[in-house]
Amino acid sequence: MSAFEDLMSYARDTTALGEIAGRLGWDQETVMPRGAAAQRGAEMAAIESVLHARRSAPEVGDWLEKAEAPDEVGAAQLREIRRAFDRANKVPARLAKELAQVTSEAQGKWAAARADEDVSAFLPVLERVVELKREEGAALAAGGTLYDAMLDDYEPGITGAEIATLFDAMRPRLVDLRAAVLDKPAPKGLTGMYDEKVQMRLARKLARTFGYDMNRGRVDKAVHPFSSGSGMDVRITTRTNPSDPFNCIYSTIHEVGHAAYEQSIDDAYALTPIGHGASMGVHESQSRIYENQLGRSRAFTGWLFEEMRDVYGNIGINSADEFFGAVNRVHNGYIRTESDEVQYNLHIMLRFDLERALMSGDLQVADLEAAWNDRFKADFGYAVDRPSNGCLQDVHWSVGLFGYFPTYSLGNVYAGCLHHALREAVPLLDDQLSAGDTLGATSWLRENVQRHGGLYEPRKVIEKATGAPVSEAPLLDYLEAKFGALYGL
Amino acid sequence: MSAFEDLMSYARDTTALGEIAGRLGWDQETVMPRGAAAQRGAEMAAIESVLHARRSAPEVGDWLEKAEAPDEVGAAQLREIRRAFDRANKVPARLAKELAQVTSEAQGKWAAARADEDVSAFLPVLERVVELKREEGAALAAGGTLYDAMLDDYEPGITGAEIATLFDAMRPRLVDLRAAVLDKPAPKGLTGMYDEKVQMRLARKLARTFGYDMNRGRVDKAVHPFSSGSGMDVRITTRTNPSDPFNCIYSTIHEVGHAAYEQSIDDAYALTPIGHGASMGVHESQSRIYENQLGRSRAFTGWLFEEMRDVYGNIGINSADEFFGAVNRVHNGYIRTESDEVQYNLHIMLRFDLERALMSGDLQVADLEAAWNDRFKADFGYAVDRPSNGCLQDVHWSVGLFGYFPTYSLGNVYAGCLHHALREAVPLLDDQLSAGDTLGATSWLRENVQRHGGLYEPRKVIEKATGAPVSEAPLLDYLEAKFGALYGL
Repeated sequence: MSAFEDLMSYARDTTALGEIAGRLGWDQETVMPRGAAAQRGAEMAAIESVLHARRSAPEVGDWLEKAEAPDEVGAAQLREIRRAFDRANKVPARLAKELAQVTSEAQGKWAAARADEDVSAFLPVLERVVELKREEGAALAAGGTLYDAMLDDYEPGITGAEIATLFDAMRPRLVDLRAAVLDKPAPKGLTGMYDEKVQMRLARKLARTFGYDMNRGRVDKAVHPFSSGSGMDVRITTRTNPSDPFNCIYSTIHEVGHAAYEQSIDDAYALTPIGHGASMGVHESQSRIYENQLGRSRAFTGWLFEEMRDVYGNIGINSADEFFGAVNRVHNGYIRTESDEVQYNLHIMLRFDLERALMSGDLQVADLEAAWNDRFKADFGYAVDRPSNGCLQDVHWSVGLFGYFPTYSLGNVYAGCLHHALREAVPLLDDQLSAGDTLGATSWLRENVQRHGGLYEPRKVIEKATGAPVSEAPLLDYLEAKFGALYGL
Repeated sequence: MSAFEDLMSYARDTTALGEIAGRLGWDQETVMPRGAAAQRGAEMAAIESVLHARRSAPEVGDWLEKAEAPDEVGAAQLREIRRAFDRANKVPARLAKELAQVTSEAQGKWAAARADEDVSAFLPVLERVVELKREEGAALAAGGTLYDAMLDDYEPGITGAEIATLFDAMRPRLVDLRAAVLDKPAPKGLTGMYDEKVQMRLARKLARTFGYDMNRGRVDKAVHPFSSGSGMDVRITTRTNPSDPFNCIYSTIHEVGHAAYEQSIDDAYALTPIGHGASMGVHESQSRIYENQLGRSRAFTGWLFEEMRDVYGNIGINSADEFFGAVNRVHNGYIRTESDEVQYNLHIMLRFDLERALMSGDLQVADLEAAWNDRFKADFGYAVDRPSNGCLQDVHWSVGLFGYFPTYSLGNVYAGCLHHALREAVPLLDDQLSAGDTLGATSWLRENVQRHGGLYEPRKVIEKATGAPVSEAPLLDYLEAKFGALYGL
């Protein structure tokens, strides 16, 4: 066998072991007995240590030196293997282990601090996380910009400066749109209670409606909705809230976007380094376009309104237009995950600026709460009332996910670009969606984005699909048009 | 760190990875999407190959040479590590891989052949399995007896000759008891239909009744009942049949016996080579004593009768004595897994003799069906009517489990010994059981058998618990007394 074939055979097993680790994560959040947590920690540590050893193994380095890619796909495989090899070798084992331990401890402290509304109980361990992440970032950056090295874990090829430029271009139009919308009376919301078993039945129907293949996946309830796995075994979770059926509906459609991406990747890439989504941002583009540009469109909500009335009877809303308003209500609030399409990216920009400053050393952990609260007041116009609504609301920093937040907004921007191109490619899209038919949209996305998996670098995926450079303009045009019409601006 | 400590740290991770492989097995039988089978095969192969490499790693050999056990527990750990190391190094990688492939294929062919009642479709691949297993056995035996080397995988320290002697001592009394019982009119059986959801509720109640810790386990439905995992995460499955609620009840109690064993092992052994049951035979002793000597006793069935009437109302049986008879009906039949306490071991003896002859070369695969049918007629007095009721009924041989069958009967013999000692230690056992209180029995078993895990060799576990050598006599005395009384012999 050639060095390339040897390397690919080894990488296939590594990828399979990575899938197993992912499945343990699913198990932990859905079916694991409560008392198994400590043992599971030891099991996860054991498999992570095997994965780290395999990714950084000296023979991988030897193969990488000798391997010649037979084609474009092979070159992409080598690119991904090299990325993982370099990363695993740059971070000292001692640091990797300490980070795993400290972030595990920090997550627990964060959860307790959030429950107690006590920032001071969290800051000491966060300080330690920041210190270790900066050390890791310095090792990864090798002289370059530390935050850019972190971004590379989630969105390869983009820099903090590029994201800052993008966000600067987005902010004024978003701020204006938000102000104009909040100046108008809000549409009527949903009231009443909605049986949770019926919500789950509807969730499964919606998953199928958006092309999720139940034969290669399953839908369960969990505290946090997520999608997990690649290829032939891609599982999603959702949640139910008796007074808010939209939570279940749109969490499901969002996760189906992630899962459909993984399920649609070319079978030839199964259990290889490119057999998963291209980046967090491209992944989020799929979940967002399913959830928002498709799932919250006037056309699709017209169909959904009838479905809701079929299963629940009278829901206190009398027309499809009124229902469209209820789905897309813009409202003040503190929490990123409960935000609407208009304000969501403002929540991200706040986090991006703060975490970049934490990593550069311009912001100290001790000053984080004040910085958050000042910035929130400036951006949203009202004060944070308690830490769980402020700097303690997200788990990300406790587990060391610095550089992750901006991929949510990149996903929105990519979704805007894709939606623009999709509308041109499928002129009858609204007719289809209003009949509950997503096939035109999902097959275009499958053909132009999803099937490629990790073949291309993130922005290249979007640019190949749309035929145009990535830009914030289509997203902002879409938001202004949609909410302008809805709010009569 | 000392060589012993290095080795133990390495072995802990290997054990944790073994737990993960076990959890994938659970996932596959309970929640895995159907379409994920092929991918799961690749994942299992990847983790099995990691496990094999770790068990046979040269550094393990170096550590084993240098390691000094600090105490009895440490010596047992070294014994188990050495056993796995020797085994993994004796079997050539080429043979191990071929066995994995051929048995995987054979299992599929067996299932199809059984469905089609077509022995000839199964024999060619079985021939290949037998050939490879004999090759493996020769490598493991290193000049010794091939079948004994196979037994060592399931019941370390016992030989085929010892089992033959044991079975020869059991057979006459079992044959006589069977003849006497079948000569009498059978007690009335159960009729009617029993809601499957109610069966599952009762199963969970019974699991708790027998001390299964739901905080470190869970009960699900699966095609085949099994127990899976060790320590803090031990899951069981059961099944339901609307016309036969005893199937669910006794499958559950049986699996709870296995699971309680794993849950009760000393926490200090968690995720170490001795942190699981001592052997298949000792494991089966726990499942059998829970199921039969406790669960099918007159005392316990008296309590169960009231439980059944509570949840189902009138079940067409009017007294606890009549119910005891229904639970313990002895009946003609072909299928091992549906057999009663009186006849079960005769089914095992048939398989033991045939598989030993296959391994020694005294029996050819081509003659297996005829040999099975002749022996069945001789032992049971009536002819096998079709292959699925004969030599195609069990999966074991297709997957290469030669040497496994006799551990079922060893489990029964061990259970007999333990039951005898338990009755002496807990004189009020029947009073407790008739109130649905199993604590006297389960705590005695936990203290004397279960907590030790793999600390002692199998027979030593039983001998330490009972203070007497292992013997078939207590089991046979128990069976003759119980069925003698029930059938008025």
